[in-house]
Amino acid sequence: MPTTAEIISIGDELLYGQTLDTNSHWISSQLDLIGIKVRRRTTIGDVEEEILSTLREAEQRADIILITGGLGPTNDDLTKPLLAKYFNVGLKRNEEALAEITALFESKGRELSGANKQQADLPENCTKLTNKMGTAPGMWFDERQTIFVSMPGVPYEMKEIMTSQVLPRLKERFFGGIILHHIIRTVGIPESTLAEKLVDWEKNLPPQLKLAYLPSMGQVKLRLTAIGDDQSALQQSIDEQVAQALPLIEKYVYGFGNDELEKVVGDTLLKAGKSIAFAESCTGGYLSHMITSIPGSSAYFKGSIISYDYDVKVNSLDVNKAEMEEKGAVSEEVVLQMARAVREKLHADIGLSISGVAGPGGGTEEKPVGTVWIAYSDKEKTVAKKFNFSKDRILNIKFSALAALNMFRIHFSSN
Amino acid sequence: MPTTAEIISIGDELLYGQTLDTNSHWISSQLDLIGIKVRRRTTIGDVEEEILSTLREAEQRADIILITGGLGPTNDDLTKPLLAKYFNVGLKRNEEALAEITALFESKGRELSGANKQQADLPENCTKLTNKMGTAPGMWFDERQTIFVSMPGVPYEMKEIMTSQVLPRLKERFFGGIILHHIIRTVGIPESTLAEKLVDWEKNLPPQLKLAYLPSMGQVKLRLTAIGDDQSALQQSIDEQVAQALPLIEKYVYGFGNDELEKVVGDTLLKAGKSIAFAESCTGGYLSHMITSIPGSSAYFKGSIISYDYDVKVNSLDVNKAEMEEKGAVSEEVVLQMARAVREKLHADIGLSISGVAGPGGGTEEKPVGTVWIAYSDKEKTVAKKFNFSKDRILNIKFSALAALNMFRIHFSSN
Repeated sequence: MPTTAEIISIGDELLYGQTLDTNSHWISSQLDLIGIKVRRRTTIGDVEEEILSTLREAEQRADIILITGGLGPTNDDLTKPLLAKYFNVGLKRNEEALAEITALFESKGRELSGANKQQADLPENCTKLTNKMGTAPGMWFDERQTIFVSMPGVPYEMKEIMTSQVLPRLKERFFGGIILHHIIRTVGIPESTLAEKLVDWEKNLPPQLKLAYLPSMGQVKLRLTAIGDDQSALQQSIDEQVAQALPLIEKYVYGFGNDELEKVVGDTLLKAGKSIAFAESCTGGYLSHMITSIPGSSAYFKGSIISYDYDVKVNSLDVNKAEMEEKGAVSEEVVLQMARAVREKLHADIGLSISGVAGPGGGTEEKPVGTVWIAYSDKEKTVAKKFNFSKDRILNIKFSALAALNMFRIHFSSN
Repeated sequence: MPTTAEIISIGDELLYGQTLDTNSHWISSQLDLIGIKVRRRTTIGDVEEEILSTLREAEQRADIILITGGLGPTNDDLTKPLLAKYFNVGLKRNEEALAEITALFESKGRELSGANKQQADLPENCTKLTNKMGTAPGMWFDERQTIFVSMPGVPYEMKEIMTSQVLPRLKERFFGGIILHHIIRTVGIPESTLAEKLVDWEKNLPPQLKLAYLPSMGQVKLRLTAIGDDQSALQQSIDEQVAQALPLIEKYVYGFGNDELEKVVGDTLLKAGKSIAFAESCTGGYLSHMITSIPGSSAYFKGSIISYDYDVKVNSLDVNKAEMEEKGAVSEEVVLQMARAVREKLHADIGLSISGVAGPGGGTEEKPVGTVWIAYSDKEKTVAKKFNFSKDRILNIKFSALAALNMFRIHFSSN
């Protein structure tokens, strides 16, 4: 029997649709990485009988129960007293927890209230989990052959406690062996086409390796997982298989591990000592937002000209007005001029430009909604490509920005 | 007893953390609007015994059970045969459903497969719910005093079925009376401060009105809900209370109903026949992305200059280099120049500019991470304001863009 977990999210704000629960999603993905399968996730409100009955039911099914929410200092927050009730134990002041909470308040120059002090009162049977980011400690219970973990619902507090304390303990307890992951990141190829290219390779994977396709907007991640006892043999097995797979899909691979495309593009520029600038029309700043979401991007990103208006294309990007009137703003001629001009005007080594019909309006028979031209320009060459994306405005914006970064990946050479 | 609902989300991809479940969040918020309380949400995998046991448990607790997922044409999709098994009925070809699926395929010029035809086979005891956006019909079961609804997991298909068919039926069935909502949208004031200003007003609300505070990043929505039998009396009661509340919080109210701030700003510009342009530094295009996420924004948005680099500020926005070197790029002097320049250069009526320290690097003692200057400029005046946001890069970007739109709201006058 594989180890199974359940996740219980507690909070009226989740149940009534005010707050989107991203915690249970993140926890699921982290457990998946250490070979623990989530069997069920339950969201309930701040209601005593619901919390107790959910705990009882989950205990019958799962080896591990992870609980988030309901740990604040106010009376709505029922999780801690109910866990004490559930295990039939009292609450006891945890001096180490009190010292941690006091230190956190002192570092912010704030006074500790009575309610905050009570956050250091924990069920007698729990092991305290340090919360570096907030005042509610996490709790670890090892009772009746089940592990119960209670954590705050604030995402960055929960993630810190999971990463530093819960996941290592769960891995040690439930997973004696070695588990290795290798992620290959691809862009510009649908999942089904990628799977076709890899069908023979996948069939011949050794039994200790498992493959997962993880698709997300315009990208597909391939995750190879190796499970066994011998770390170096597993690593070697992964390396061999990756070496065989890469030539089959090389054109589409932009990186490995956790790095997003915008990070890989940034690192490439940084390493080459080159700079980049964008001329955006239909994406309206989204490409610039992507590249600047990476800390340190000022080292290679010069800036952008967002030319939503025809006049801005002509005045700020020197687009030939007569040609634009003839060919349209969404045309090869115009994006080529935009990419070249933004590179020169902003003194960048590389220019990328985008002009398209994001929709819902503005489409024609010849250029329907989703038609997008993208250009790449450097000192040596300026090239453009036409794309046909979707009918949806926001998707078109996101696909276009991703495709522009992919144009960079394909055409950039550090020479 | 209030009417209670449960939501069951089915799919391995949810449970293993590959796909974020936004469906149950959206359904919760929609049920809340018609006075139906969600009691529990459960996420389970494509596993027969889990699906059947979850249905049995939910039936004991809830009046309404809404199920999403597991309705695709492949063998992993278990929901439909399991519902037939659960109710002990057979599947029967639904000719109307078949006609709808056929028409959908024809409109896309695609051939109907056998698997697709089988999507028209429905449990004998269900009422078909038309799926205008896809091939899997929804199903409505009215059995043993409980309503069961099964819908596809694709968000836009589910939302269409909910909005056009499920919510109206549920409202009719479970809510005989009238329910009215009025939403007041505020920005630039924390929930606790807003609540202080409204404490006396809230105390004196008539019993048929309920107030909810709905906070989200930098904004707080106030929702007044009126429940009763007399539509015009309820409407009058809401109007009276809103008229009393508004003077207390007027400075912070930017709109009503479902319109986001970027939409309200766009509508204001459109109505006044004015145009806008942005000069962005630390927000790196996010403000431009916000305004252009609204369809039709090309009618008032000219474009932006994203001046991440010092040189771009000097060359493209005429910022005085000596002054910038003295005062720093994050300064009142620089944002004033940026706002004025972008307005003039892009031939816009209004210019907004932002320069700040987004972090994590770049902070100093005098200007720590989170320090942001924002300026508004029109023909009559150019004004700037300093903000201190957070330590988090992405939050600083989003707070800054929101604050810039709020600067427009405060300073723009259509005269």
